[in-house]
Order: sequence, then C-alpha cells, then structure tokens
Amino acid sequence: MITIGLDVGGTKVLGVAVDSAAPASPLAEERVPTPDGGAGLVDALVGLADRLAARCSEHGPVTAMGVGVPGLVDRSGMLHLGPHLRHIADLPLSAAMTERTGVPVPVDNDANCHALAELRAGAAQGVEEALVVTLGTGIGAGVVTGGQVLHGMNGFAGEPGHMIVNPNGPPCPCGQRGCWERFASGTGLARLAREAAEAGRLEAVTAASGGDPDMVRGEHVTSAAAVGDAEAKTVLDEFAWWIGLGLANLTNVLDPSTIVLGGGLVDAADLVLPGVRRHFAALVMAGTERRLPEMVPAQLGERAGAIGAALLVTAS
Amino acid sequence: MITIGLDVGGTKVLGVAVDSAAPASPLAEERVPTPDGGAGLVDALVGLADRLAARCSEHGPVTAMGVGVPGLVDRSGMLHLGPHLRHIADLPLSAAMTERTGVPVPVDNDANCHALAELRAGAAQGVEEALVVTLGTGIGAGVVTGGQVLHGMNGFAGEPGHMIVNPNGPPCPCGQRGCWERFASGTGLARLAREAAEAGRLEAVTAASGGDPDMVRGEHVTSAAAVGDAEAKTVLDEFAWWIGLGLANLTNVLDPSTIVLGGGLVDAADLVLPGVRRHFAALVMAGTERRLPEMVPAQLGERAGAIGAALLVTAS
Repeated sequence: MITIGLDVGGTKVLGVAVDSAAPASPLAEERVPTPDGGAGLVDALVGLADRLAARCSEHGPVTAMGVGVPGLVDRSGMLHLGPHLRHIADLPLSAAMTERTGVPVPVDNDANCHALAELRAGAAQGVEEALVVTLGTGIGAGVVTGGQVLHGMNGFAGEPGHMIVNPNGPPCPCGQRGCWERFASGTGLARLAREAAEAGRLEAVTAASGGDPDMVRGEHVTSAAAVGDAEAKTVLDEFAWWIGLGLANLTNVLDPSTIVLGGGLVDAADLVLPGVRRHFAALVMAGTERRLPEMVPAQLGERAGAIGAALLVTAS
Repeated sequence: MITIGLDVGGTKVLGVAVDSAAPASPLAEERVPTPDGGAGLVDALVGLADRLAARCSEHGPVTAMGVGVPGLVDRSGMLHLGPHLRHIADLPLSAAMTERTGVPVPVDNDANCHALAELRAGAAQGVEEALVVTLGTGIGAGVVTGGQVLHGMNGFAGEPGHMIVNPNGPPCPCGQRGCWERFASGTGLARLAREAAEAGRLEAVTAASGGDPDMVRGEHVTSAAAVGDAEAKTVLDEFAWWIGLGLANLTNVLDPSTIVLGGGLVDAADLVLPGVRRHFAALVMAGTERRLPEMVPAQLGERAGAIGAALLVTAS
C-alpha cells in the first residue's frame, strides 16, 4: 500500500511517499516552504501530495495520506493551536484535506508522528511501553502504551515538555515557569551555557565566541566538550542532569521498557547520553531495584515525522 | 464468581469477599493486624482468606483471590520493596499464596488495586483514560490507558508521587528532593502548615494548638478553614496549588478524561477540590483550549484497595 506523509514544520513541509511494507525507506521525498494561513497550507499540502503521487505512480495508486503538524490536534484532525505556524488556528485540516484529495487524511501532532514512525519502523519496533522524546528547540514526545501511541481525551497527550519541574524556574512561552523544556531542550542548553559564561565558568568557550558571554550558544559548548574542554563538559553534564530528571519523572509514571531520544541531541549522543543515563538511574524511583529502560537514539532522523504521518492511516 | 481481595497496609490487612457481579458491596469483610516478615504475612493472609471464604460459603466457592501491597510489585507478583512493611523484601507473594491456597492469586501494588476498583466499580467506570490518585500520608496512583491499569515494564508504573517538581525542595525518604509527594500529600500539608505557623501566618490555628508552631497539624488547618479562618484557607490554597501542579503535569503527559481523587483529601473535598480545579486549569498546558478532565472524588473509600485486589484475577 502506497501512502503519503506530510510533516509540517515552522519553515518547511517535508513530504514522503512510502510503501507501508518498508516505510523506513521512502519511495520519494520532497519539501516546500510552509505558507502562511490555513487555506495556503491546504493548497501547499495538496500540491506536494500530487507531485509525490506522480513521482511514485509506477508503484501503484496512493490510497491514503497523513499529516503531522506542530501543535494541538484533536481526534477529529482539527488543529487547535500551532504556536509555530503563522495565522493558523482552529483549522479542520483532516476534513479539508480529505475533501480535496478524496482519500482518508488523518492528522496528528508531529511528535506523535515521530513516535509512531520509531514504533513501526525505527528504534522502538515491537515495544509495548515506550517513550519517544525529541529534544530540539523545544521538547516533543509521544507516549506508547499497549503498543499504541497514546492520545488521551483531547488528543493532547504526550506533552511532557510542559511538566513543571521547578516552579521558580525561568518563564516559558506557554505561560508557566520552570517547564522541563526550559532546561532540557536546545533552548535550555543555550540558557545554561549563557548563565555559565556570565558567571565566568566557561572561559575558553567565551573567548572562542568573541569574549561576549551573550554570544555563547549551545553548539559552542557541545563543540568545546567534544575536544575535551572541562568547563564545557560540566555545563553539558548539568544539561544531562535536567534531561535525566524529566525522563525519571516520566518513568515513575509510565515505566517504559524503551526510551527513544531524537532531535539535535542525537548528533551529540556520545557526549550527552552517558550523562543522561547516569543521572537518570540516580533520579528514578528505586533505580537500583528495577530494570532500567533501554535508552536509545532515534533511527529515522529528520524524516521520522513524515514517515509517521504516512503510517497514521494504519495506526489504530 | 466469588473472589477474595486482601489489602495489606502498614498496620492492618483488610480482606473482603465479593461477588464479581457487584464488587462494590462486599459479601464479607474482616481485618487483622499486619504481621512482621514474609512468612508471617503469608500465614495471616491465608487465615484471613479462609475465614472470609467460610463466612460467604452460602454464595458459592471462592475461585480466586488477589492481594494488594504497598510497594513495588513486579508482573510475576514478587514484592521487591515495601517501605511500610517491616522485614519484608523480595517476597514471591503470588507464588507463595497460590501454592498455599490452590487458586490463582495475582498480586499488585495497592494503588493499582485502588485504580482498578474505581475503574470497574467506582468513579471511573467505563473510562478509557483515567488517573486515580490517592492523597494520603504519601501519594498513590494508578494510570488507566485504553481501559486498563497501566503496569509498565517492571510493573512499577503509576508512581507520580516521586515526580520531582522542585529540585530545591525538601528531602524525600526516597532519596530525592522535592518529590510531588513532599507537597501534595498529608505530609505535605503538615509541612506547609508548620512553615506557615513558624512564619506567624497561622495565628489563630497556632493559638488553638497550644501556641507552639511545631504542634500545628494538617487537620488543624482543615478544621480552621472549615469554619472560615482566612489564614488557614490561604495555607489550604497553597496545598491545592501543589496538587493542581502535579495533576497538570500528569495531564500534559496523559490527557485523561477523568481524574479520581481519593484518600484523606476526599473528606475535605468541599474545602480543597474547588481550589485544585482552579489551579489545575491555570497550570495545565492550553487550559483554555482543551476540555479539562472531570475531577471527581473516589467512591469506594477505604475498601477500594481490597475490592480492587478481588478484581485482579479478571483484570487482564
């Protein structure tokens, strides 16, 4: 069965056509810039799907497609809120796409699509209880229970980035203070790095960034740690502690057998994962009395969302 | 079908015999003190079950029993760790009981039994995604997804009391700092009350407790708030805020349609629940964009654990 998956991001839409028998290796792939507004988005998605269908027509007709979007999507495929999408809110995306294309078009949150892709075709294949966490600018996540991606009443399950882990912590765009995402995402690493630089705890990194602590970025810390800078390693260790804390909180609730970590962190996996595993084991309840979940890097990379979207139609 | 449920507590064991067609109204009920040690516990449970079986023999033979224990229980019914049980660890309780009684004896964590009872015969009947939280001395919880109590890889799922919600918070017996249970349990209320009394923010309550801030207990605050003491109401509101925070964290992850609240708090439900609902709505992600879970008091009271234990054999 040939299906199309469309992963809507803040700046671009990535589309893939996959054979559902081998979804990890798309038959075709294409991207377009993300347009403003709901009508423009539907047009762009339909156009992208048409081109992908044409490119893989030799494999058979497209029987379904799926869309992943960054935001709150309910079970009917209505996008309620997409903080990273301009001029789009309360868009009945599934209904609009189904009407335009004549095939079923389920729509889900992009992090849930990631999770579905890793569950069906990536690092969590065959796992009953898993957690798929993407550490990017923010934190995206999908919770797998009973071999299915959990949606919850509204379809809003799987947003641990907004667990409050320090009520006195920095403000979050969501309106709260001290959300996990403030500490354990790319944005969190950048803040930890800036604070360390301002406190004079990142001398070599600050000097290499031009001497201004405000110019120190997360990637400067990662690069310096990679070549052995001790101060940079300390900052990365603090970052790993926060990642471990949130994963421990989630494990206390869900007790998954596998935690898949994706996003930019995966590129620095050798630097960060050992620290995450160590802090996690120390922070999770009864860490010495339990089997700890396997903590593995995501396998499907930046295509995971699109591949998962292509699998949505067969997901439930 | 007649089954027996045995709920092991730190000081007593409560046993019930139920007809599985009407589990909320036990046919018989009995309690014994909790003995020290694993062998003593098995003897006590077998004796209790025998007496319950004799008392309801007119209804038919007992076809199964179940046991709920306060601690970490794996999927094989092995009790790994029971902090509130003296001299008991690594006890293969299910195997020992099955051998002694000749019927299947599944064993689960007591909070999971609570959740199962409320799911099958109480406040969460027919609910697919629920959270059952018992606020007592500590916090017990059961997570329901897909209409089943979630166990996870080890059987240790549903321990949100040890979510870290403030890494600079008070130490927890579990070894961490700032676990949710340090704030949102009876112990948490007692600490909030003592801190308020020491800071001179609970004048009338402190005076009524004999003038010593160290003697102020949670129930003094609840009683004073019930008769309108404004300072006591402020402390209860702070307590409600912490409860709301943890429930918001859990809802961000699970998006349940129903949250059942049990334990001592239920007795003070009229005083505390409105504040919990208000703070929860303000703390949960996209609180104004989503349907909020129904927040309801538990229905089965102190028998919930035993009733749930009696239902374990039919749970999966």
